[in-house]
Amino acid sequence: METLIKEPRTRNAKNTFNSIIESAIDLFYRRGYHGTTVKDITKEAGVAAGTFYLYFPSKLDLYKHILIMLSHEIRRTIAAKVNEKKSRYDKEREGIKAFILLVKEQPYMYNIIWESLYIDRELFKDYYESFASRYVKGLNQSASEGEIRDLDTEIVSYILMGITNFIGLKVALDLGSSNDDINHIVDVVMDLIKHGLFTKK
Amino acid sequence: METLIKEPRTRNAKNTFNSIIESAIDLFYRRGYHGTTVKDITKEAGVAAGTFYLYFPSKLDLYKHILIMLSHEIRRTIAAKVNEKKSRYDKEREGIKAFILLVKEQPYMYNIIWESLYIDRELFKDYYESFASRYVKGLNQSASEGEIRDLDTEIVSYILMGITNFIGLKVALDLGSSNDDINHIVDVVMDLIKHGLFTKK
Repeated sequence: METLIKEPRTRNAKNTFNSIIESAIDLFYRRGYHGTTVKDITKEAGVAAGTFYLYFPSKLDLYKHILIMLSHEIRRTIAAKVNEKKSRYDKEREGIKAFILLVKEQPYMYNIIWESLYIDRELFKDYYESFASRYVKGLNQSASEGEIRDLDTEIVSYILMGITNFIGLKVALDLGSSNDDINHIVDVVMDLIKHGLFTKK
Repeated sequence: METLIKEPRTRNAKNTFNSIIESAIDLFYRRGYHGTTVKDITKEAGVAAGTFYLYFPSKLDLYKHILIMLSHEIRRTIAAKVNEKKSRYDKEREGIKAFILLVKEQPYMYNIIWESLYIDRELFKDYYESFASRYVKGLNQSASEGEIRDLDTEIVSYILMGITNFIGLKVALDLGSSNDDINHIVDVVMDLIKHGLFTKK
């Protein structure tokens, strides 16, 4: 996943650039990628139609740029919390909590990231494979230090991403009940990850 | 989530009805819901354009019908395996395995179910809330029998759906490596669900 988009340098150009991105995020969330035209985006951003192409070769390039932005934002937000902690247990706890709070604040993230499955399946695959491979490095490190059990860490990374994503989805879309008490939710997740589900071992 | 679609009774009508559905599934998977027109569907199905409306009031109604079909197929396939087993552990194991095998065989399922998020967000919410509420019933039963620990079963249901969905996604889209040995994958999942991730408890 590569981008050729260069962020502009002057303040005016930056403002225009950012306002195109913000309008696109808003429209992609409300109407979907396919339901949004470049004209819709420039209209919402309050810029001339031709201005769009000064910054982005196409709607797809803009979408890819936004996907990379969101992916970096998620990684940065999680890393900031995870890096404060030493143990894998605390890292997982803080990482999951940071992700839930992020998507609660910005529920459009799910829509825009998962929509890649309908825009270009390879983008979706790249997104999760790249996330998983970073996760695996951390898990391998913890396994080598004996903090986590000796399991297939690639599979474990998808298990943990699945938990985080579906719990995040529950909170972001308010599925079911009791989505306000984030600490309670994180407690249950960590309790299950720590002790497992069953009474007999 | 309700459907008003009536399945036709005569053999000819049934064939036409099913061939419209099969063509739609194929096209929705390859081009997405928004990239597919009713005309594309009837052309692919080899039926006259007007025929579509004998069975479905609109493309959205057809989509909803397919979503319900897939949801029933997933539940039926999982239930057939789960009901053979007595313990919650065996039920989880067989349920997860059945789901993985199903989406490996029919990877279009993900695309079509998750696309509901871009067609009508309420469909997506209904889909997972309804799945979760059935899951919770089973978990509550196992908790009352003392087989699983006393945790918030609604949250547990999303944790388990998250695991199953992301492991299924890994296999269906062939993310990362070693997606051929389904038994190994299920072993790792069950090992983690049973014993937790960490060495120290």
